Amino acid sequence: MTERLTGPERLNRRPNGADDLAGHAAALDAADPLAGFRDQFVGADDPKIIAYLDGNSLGRPLRATRERISHFVTEIWGRRLIRAWDEGWMDDPLRIGDQIGRVVLGAAPGQTVVGDSTSVMLYKWIRAALASQAGRDEIIVDVGNFPTDRFVVEGIATELGMRLRWLEADPRAGVTVDQITEVIGSRTALILLSDVAYRSGYLADVAAINAMAHDHEALVLWDVCHSAGVIPRQFDDWRVDLAVGCTYKYLNGGPGSPAFGYVHADLQKQLRQPIQGWMGSAEPFAMAEHYTPSDGIRRFLSGTPSIIGMLAMQDMLALIEQAGLEAIRAKSVALTEFAIQVSEALLGPLGVQVGSPRDSAVRGSHVTLEHPEFRAAAARLWALGVIPDFRPPDGLRIGLSPLSTSFGEVYRGLVAVREVLWQPAS
Amino acid sequence: MTERLTGPERLNRRPNGADDLAGHAAALDAADPLAGFRDQFVGADDPKIIAYLDGNSLGRPLRATRERISHFVTEIWGRRLIRAWDEGWMDDPLRIGDQIGRVVLGAAPGQTVVGDSTSVMLYKWIRAALASQAGRDEIIVDVGNFPTDRFVVEGIATELGMRLRWLEADPRAGVTVDQITEVIGSRTALILLSDVAYRSGYLADVAAINAMAHDHEALVLWDVCHSAGVIPRQFDDWRVDLAVGCTYKYLNGGPGSPAFGYVHADLQKQLRQPIQGWMGSAEPFAMAEHYTPSDGIRRFLSGTPSIIGMLAMQDMLALIEQAGLEAIRAKSVALTEFAIQVSEALLGPLGVQVGSPRDSAVRGSHVTLEHPEFRAAAARLWALGVIPDFRPPDGLRIGLSPLSTSFGEVYRGLVAVREVLWQPAS
Repeated sequence: MTERLTGPERLNRRPNGADDLAGHAAALDAADPLAGFRDQFVGADDPKIIAYLDGNSLGRPLRATRERISHFVTEIWGRRLIRAWDEGWMDDPLRIGDQIGRVVLGAAPGQTVVGDSTSVMLYKWIRAALASQAGRDEIIVDVGNFPTDRFVVEGIATELGMRLRWLEADPRAGVTVDQITEVIGSRTALILLSDVAYRSGYLADVAAINAMAHDHEALVLWDVCHSAGVIPRQFDDWRVDLAVGCTYKYLNGGPGSPAFGYVHADLQKQLRQPIQGWMGSAEPFAMAEHYTPSDGIRRFLSGTPSIIGMLAMQDMLALIEQAGLEAIRAKSVALTEFAIQVSEALLGPLGVQVGSPRDSAVRGSHVTLEHPEFRAAAARLWALGVIPDFRPPDGLRIGLSPLSTSFGEVYRGLVAVREVLWQPAS
Repeated sequence: MTERLTGPERLNRRPNGADDLAGHAAALDAADPLAGFRDQFVGADDPKIIAYLDGNSLGRPLRATRERISHFVTEIWGRRLIRAWDEGWMDDPLRIGDQIGRVVLGAAPGQTVVGDSTSVMLYKWIRAALASQAGRDEIIVDVGNFPTDRFVVEGIATELGMRLRWLEADPRAGVTVDQITEVIGSRTALILLSDVAYRSGYLADVAAINAMAHDHEALVLWDVCHSAGVIPRQFDDWRVDLAVGCTYKYLNGGPGSPAFGYVHADLQKQLRQPIQGWMGSAEPFAMAEHYTPSDGIRRFLSGTPSIIGMLAMQDMLALIEQAGLEAIRAKSVALTEFAIQVSEALLGPLGVQVGSPRDSAVRGSHVTLEHPEFRAAAARLWALGVIPDFRPPDGLRIGLSPLSTSFGEVYRGLVAVREVLWQPAS
């Protein structure tokens, strides 16, 4: 019978035959040109956090963010007070939007804006798209979209009496162009997809799907929550119509930081979103009698933007620009390759399966492992300081944020998964 | 010709005959039981801020907030990481909502939630209310509502083909019960009002209007942005149906901090809001196939709540509870009385008029002064460190936040207004 160790100590035990993987992790870290960035994150040196494998759900804070927020409270909010709206805050949603466009999306200025929560922005973007597609009454939706995307579009379709065409993709992969071709037609108003599937990590062919959709005069709205900041995107080149993405995952904006939205310049004039709040109006401080939408991307704003919520993401955007998104993607691929390799070697014998694509060309920055015991295992791992997340019914997501995740961390985390599966709670 | 002084020095000059007002300010401060709270705000001792008279637009940060946010980044976000959702964040919108309900609104638990921006919450609340009022096609709206309220409801009415019945109130006061009685009827679905008018500061009779509306089976949605935290409210006693309010004014939540919404317990089951995001669903982490709204007030949430955005307001709520809302209201009345007295004495001779009610029983916590030169004057005042805000066409709002505003500050600020009006830019 295996001796039962408790707490973090037992995670230092190496499973038999794992020496080469541990050595491999160390060698990968030693050769990693981005390894030095890890020190810039709060908690990276905390011995109680054995492995943080959920940067795809909530990115770690940067040390710079702690300073930025403190300075903000004391010097900007506290001393410039309301004057700061004129001195920068009014432009923040567009300025930081442009920064996201440039650093992360491959988008020219004037097309990206930071706004509400992802769910609210999806709602606004979907409603705006549908209103511009008069006479078309169908929406194509991938069942593999994150729940909030499906929930939001379901509500809208019910209200407007539109038909949803659900795409049932391979749950370990994602939607293909062929699947969409089968259902698209002259009634298709909008296609709602994620470029990286939140569960499998499957990476869709954005350019090909856009081109096919545009042949049918359908619009495509991309949820880019799981690619933003970790996989280079070429929105303008790929003729993206619409996108919404998250800033608290790989953009490290903090829990519930506001989402961003993209609207291609050519579409902005013809789109009108339904929540016509003052911040999207032509002159917010004119106290006008009636609403006139602002020109450009500002018309997609509604209420007063969350200034504090936009602070942290700026630090991560600067770091991504410094590191280079191509280099980040290269490390992301290496991390997911390594996670799969370790999983197969250590966890395969325990019945764990890899639920993500094997081909890194169609894989995002997380790997989903599958095992019927993972719901219980996840809770025990969290208590040990090994932090992936669980996605029903049986998925353990190993999220890899290249600037803050080391190969050694992946190895330690997966060794812990093995320990926990081996020694189920008595 | 008057000697021209520049910068803050000149604000120390007393206008002729103002000695008694200066002395009166000093006496009021000396006798103020809440005076000691002022030290708890960042920037209260900053010599470059001569007078902050815009706490009704953006409350000052508390010193405690600086500490809370720093601790949050380092210890909670940085070390509990994604685990913190289970350890408190998921409950924050409801927990802090209940705190607002108890301390500020006179509302029993389970009826208040912190969510999106004020504009987005107004949209959700209006849409939910209208959907529950089948067969009724009119909305009564006060033209004196803040622009975003009017803009949002206009957009909804246009979309749904509903008729807006605009109430034209006295611009120096607000809507009366009689005015509403004239237009209400069996077609009235909803009445959208502000309990404190953003411009005049007029304080509406919430209980009387509710009672009258309910006689006609109409719902009333109150915008309480300008009362929350400064005037005691008795939501449950007054049988409020629906309300939305702001947390960055007298609740000092910081620029763009999320709004709160109230839905009376009896109405929650029959109301369904249009942005059915995952955080309002019955089991957000079940990754369900279809949306089922949560029981209770949680169903009014949509996306991931802004956790950072909810930090600061908690410090102010604690301070309000400590000081007592009745005592805060008493000081608020004294501050507005004093502001009117000083304005009449010092600014009246220059043609400045008071645009707010003289009767403190129907006046909120700001006073609007009117003069054709105020647009230009406001910019010059800001440069001098005297900070009211300007509201077109000719209003200078003097906002008085009782825990951070002193009587001396009001006096200094209004002396500066006089200086600036006296010496127009050459």
